[in-house]
Amino acid sequence: MSEVATAKPAKVTIGAAELRQLVAGIFAARGTSPVDSFTVAEALVWANLRGVDSHGVSRVPRYLELFDKGESVPDAVVSVERPRAAIAIVDAHGAPGPVAMNRAADEAVAGAREAGIGWASVRGTVHTGAIGYYASRIAEAGMAAVGVVAGVPNMAYAGAKGAAVATSPLAVAVPAGKHELVLLDMATAVMALGRIAQLKAAGKELPPGVALTAEGEPTTDPALAKVPTPVGGAKGAGMSLVFEMLASGLAANPIVPSYHSGSKEGRRHRQNGFLLAIDVAAFLPLDEFTATIDDTVDAIKSLPPATGTSEILIPGERGRHTARERARAGIPLGQKVWRELSGIAGKLDVPVPAPLS
Amino acid sequence: MSEVATAKPAKVTIGAAELRQLVAGIFAARGTSPVDSFTVAEALVWANLRGVDSHGVSRVPRYLELFDKGESVPDAVVSVERPRAAIAIVDAHGAPGPVAMNRAADEAVAGAREAGIGWASVRGTVHTGAIGYYASRIAEAGMAAVGVVAGVPNMAYAGAKGAAVATSPLAVAVPAGKHELVLLDMATAVMALGRIAQLKAAGKELPPGVALTAEGEPTTDPALAKVPTPVGGAKGAGMSLVFEMLASGLAANPIVPSYHSGSKEGRRHRQNGFLLAIDVAAFLPLDEFTATIDDTVDAIKSLPPATGTSEILIPGERGRHTARERARAGIPLGQKVWRELSGIAGKLDVPVPAPLS
Repeated sequence: MSEVATAKPAKVTIGAAELRQLVAGIFAARGTSPVDSFTVAEALVWANLRGVDSHGVSRVPRYLELFDKGESVPDAVVSVERPRAAIAIVDAHGAPGPVAMNRAADEAVAGAREAGIGWASVRGTVHTGAIGYYASRIAEAGMAAVGVVAGVPNMAYAGAKGAAVATSPLAVAVPAGKHELVLLDMATAVMALGRIAQLKAAGKELPPGVALTAEGEPTTDPALAKVPTPVGGAKGAGMSLVFEMLASGLAANPIVPSYHSGSKEGRRHRQNGFLLAIDVAAFLPLDEFTATIDDTVDAIKSLPPATGTSEILIPGERGRHTARERARAGIPLGQKVWRELSGIAGKLDVPVPAPLS
Repeated sequence: MSEVATAKPAKVTIGAAELRQLVAGIFAARGTSPVDSFTVAEALVWANLRGVDSHGVSRVPRYLELFDKGESVPDAVVSVERPRAAIAIVDAHGAPGPVAMNRAADEAVAGAREAGIGWASVRGTVHTGAIGYYASRIAEAGMAAVGVVAGVPNMAYAGAKGAAVATSPLAVAVPAGKHELVLLDMATAVMALGRIAQLKAAGKELPPGVALTAEGEPTTDPALAKVPTPVGGAKGAGMSLVFEMLASGLAANPIVPSYHSGSKEGRRHRQNGFLLAIDVAAFLPLDEFTATIDDTVDAIKSLPPATGTSEILIPGERGRHTARERARAGIPLGQKVWRELSGIAGKLDVPVPAPLS
């Protein structure tokens, strides 16, 4: 085991708790409150634990750069309006995504306890991390959850040249009983931007169907690939467009039209989102519902596997397996990410934990 | 014009109003109330108008067959519980889908007027037609809408042999201002079942990626194609699975586990669904919202088109074009569909309208 570990010089392994403390320390040193700093750290490390490293602590330098540019505000105080019993409008005032989205999750749950379902729109935040995190928090409160985030266009739209809509993700979380919660957390793009970037950096040919050229033609050439393609063509593009309408339209903070207006302000990084919480116990006894979810999971996992398949997976299951392993053995970070994080921490006098390996 | 029309013997063209009256007459003759009969006719003809003929009046014989088998009840009285301000549970008691879903749309809107958003779960209905219809009705009330229907498994799931989950559709409708409402109405399958069936009937090769063999392997051979594939692989399958959990789980009427239990009852045709209405005016002035939606539509439609594209389309736009044309020129029906409908009407003493051509 230790031989295998030392044979992997490309990764530095950090314990999850230590990594959380490091990230929280960096944000606190930049002026974010201790509670909000921990919220950001928790959301980012959650993604790393689940193997979604593109949405984890590798984003810290970018978050700080947004602070430097004034596009995000370290100590922004999120404000909440509740115009009706079941809805809340959470204005992030430029707070980091996890701070605004976590508050939205709390507000959605509060609305659902009162009215059966609760919706929270989030206006004007920046990068939200993996939205499955917020949906999971709602599911851990015994509720079902739906979440969407809309951002600045970076994905193709059927028939248009160049980036038209965002790779806006959808998350759905459902509490289970003996099983762990079911969590679908998907971008509306065929392949995550991070993975395309990795293949491009390595000069590797892309699989067919994941990216278009600047002229809007399909390509597998990493040098020509400019915009990722939506999942299912018009379906993924259409989902992204209506997600923008719901997330940004209801938050009175449209992104797509202002981006395409060509103004500098329109291209500024920002995001809107919403979370919906559904209080299962208002519909039927929670344990009856979770037993149904368990039965549904069991039914799918017990199906005869297709040739070459050893295990049929439920949404969220792969991430949970990875999280269990990484909670035990630590989170492997690329050398570059680790150098950046420890460099930032050093400059801010934040203690840098010793790697596990 | 008339020469072109007479050169198409394969289609019979019926005026939309006449077709609605014919279908309503058939349902009324089978014992459905006049109001509910019109509701069914309206929903089915809406699909035909928009060119979604697979969800239109061609389904009438199947609806009647479900009456004959006792799986659907012509004069079922839909009941509604409202356990909390924002949620309703609509029990269809076997009523035809449009009757139950229309009632759910009304209940969702009522909840939204009261609490800002309104959710209606639908328990135990049968074929619901095109769910975009119900989402559109909510949008016509100045609200945004999300709708899902879950049914009996007929689609593949990553790694499993055979049908595992349903091609459960998602609809999102958003009201616009100068533009008409935006309507995404998509199945979670790559290709609609109806279109696969058409290609199979014609013995034509299927495009790659739309269907699997009974062993769960990809095929383009219509004779071997048994189950349609989900859009985006694990993404579409995951959406379908969580839609079942939300639609059927909250309605306390699980379909997927009972289907896979192998019992006869488990294979019985039935559907559950939900509709969510969002009262836009509780968030911001409706005209400000609809102006944003107009701007968003304009921004997308004004993008430089990719090579070979003449017009960039917004979700729902193609169907609306078809609806305008068919409202004017009539609805073309296949000879078989027309023979069946007029045959049924004849037996029930329902007047059969004269075709326009």
